[in-house]
Amino acid sequence: MHQSARDVKRAGKSIAFVPTMGFLHEGHLSLIREARRLADIVVVSMFVNPTQFGPGEDFEAYPRDPARDSELAENEDTDILFIPEKQDLYPPGYETYIIQENLPGHLCGISRPGHFTGVMTIVAKLFNIIKPHYAVFGEKDFQQLAVIRKMVSDLNFDVKIIGSPTVRETDGLAMSSRNKYLSSGQRSSALTLYRALCDAKEMTAKGETRADALIDAAVQTISAAPETSIDYVKICDPDTLEDVAVIDRPVLMGLAVKVGRTRLIDNTILQPGSRG
Amino acid sequence: MHQSARDVKRAGKSIAFVPTMGFLHEGHLSLIREARRLADIVVVSMFVNPTQFGPGEDFEAYPRDPARDSELAENEDTDILFIPEKQDLYPPGYETYIIQENLPGHLCGISRPGHFTGVMTIVAKLFNIIKPHYAVFGEKDFQQLAVIRKMVSDLNFDVKIIGSPTVRETDGLAMSSRNKYLSSGQRSSALTLYRALCDAKEMTAKGETRADALIDAAVQTISAAPETSIDYVKICDPDTLEDVAVIDRPVLMGLAVKVGRTRLIDNTILQPGSRG
Repeated sequence: MHQSARDVKRAGKSIAFVPTMGFLHEGHLSLIREARRLADIVVVSMFVNPTQFGPGEDFEAYPRDPARDSELAENEDTDILFIPEKQDLYPPGYETYIIQENLPGHLCGISRPGHFTGVMTIVAKLFNIIKPHYAVFGEKDFQQLAVIRKMVSDLNFDVKIIGSPTVRETDGLAMSSRNKYLSSGQRSSALTLYRALCDAKEMTAKGETRADALIDAAVQTISAAPETSIDYVKICDPDTLEDVAVIDRPVLMGLAVKVGRTRLIDNTILQPGSRG
Repeated sequence: MHQSARDVKRAGKSIAFVPTMGFLHEGHLSLIREARRLADIVVVSMFVNPTQFGPGEDFEAYPRDPARDSELAENEDTDILFIPEKQDLYPPGYETYIIQENLPGHLCGISRPGHFTGVMTIVAKLFNIIKPHYAVFGEKDFQQLAVIRKMVSDLNFDVKIIGSPTVRETDGLAMSSRNKYLSSGQRSSALTLYRALCDAKEMTAKGETRADALIDAAVQTISAAPETSIDYVKICDPDTLEDVAVIDRPVLMGLAVKVGRTRLIDNTILQPGSRG
């Protein structure tokens, strides 16, 4: 991969990279299409990265379907599918990791300690192997996108990070490989995540500026649905992820909710409304 | 720098990189000459990296002479001198670092916590900016070389790491920018570091295999000199830096000694002798 990346670069061609954990859905395919628009060569990696799963998380159970994934990626005109083995990326004696002091101390990082260290480490490794000019990440994993942007800036990676909008089912549920875990009852409860975000957008558009009022409304909406257990509902600065009390500029509303045993996340940007 | 590195690579030219903290001496120049032999383009960086100095260490006092350094580097036919500013590499809000779990827990890492995190972080940044094919490091900083090799392997940097032999004054003192701190009395005491290493080499060549006997002899030699205070004298595996008790293969003997207020390091490889 090192050598072919070098050859591609020497030929003056550009590379756009989409890192995935496989089990591709329409969200991933939209990232691949974005990559296709950006560069000459599209590289898609599929690797369920063990270092970003905590103890008790679903690393072993994470859904896998490499044959279907390969077909889907090829249908989107992917040039190179990179499917490494765990022992190649993390051989015995592996000991080097990338850490951040602040961003992982918010949102998902609180209930998933070490998760973003695992994410940054695998992304840095893949950047070094694939040497992309562009890398495309979904905005659904908003904190991941913020962490990666900061890592790229701090460590001077010569890679342009592209955020791509969340793709939703027709009923609004954000696409996720983990949606397959949901029973049909849980599937209905899961819709409250998107509903809560839409309500908050409407309230801010109408002039609500108090973050706590917006958060309270969202918590009520989600808690009323069966089998939901809220990890967090937060309104924060989109760059620093620090809490925001008054919505006087575009801010991030992010939430994480367990529906049954499945942890789902979603987010949106809230724009302050024009006050009459 | 990003763009010129890209242009150089696209032209099919190779880059060899020598990272330094400036105040160049014959040791650095030997690294630059090695780089000159390796590649088409030689890049030398000069940057006194704040993140590898601990509280109470000599960051502020570290000797600097950029005008003389530039002249010396140019005399060695350096193509690009890279002299970044601190605020460019570590702007406000900087928060991303590279850590290792094991190697920094030995030798110098014990008395300099965080030192190798600072070293790995700046080297990774410079690799991403300069995009070298080769990077040349002195074997005098043996642990640094081991840490960087491991980082490059673990994080899949596409850079070949070259270790270059320690350059010594005619009396055997390892070249170091910090030697300028030494008074003439301290200068004589400092020679015991090299003497202790030579004695150990001779003892192993004659058949001594017990690490503790070799270490005891070295401690005696160094302690007998005025103004010396030993940080460590260790015999260890050159890759893992784990202590070795019996010399049955080539091992590293490393030592760190304060002479007055100046901390000096030196090392050698001990080869087991042929037993009669």
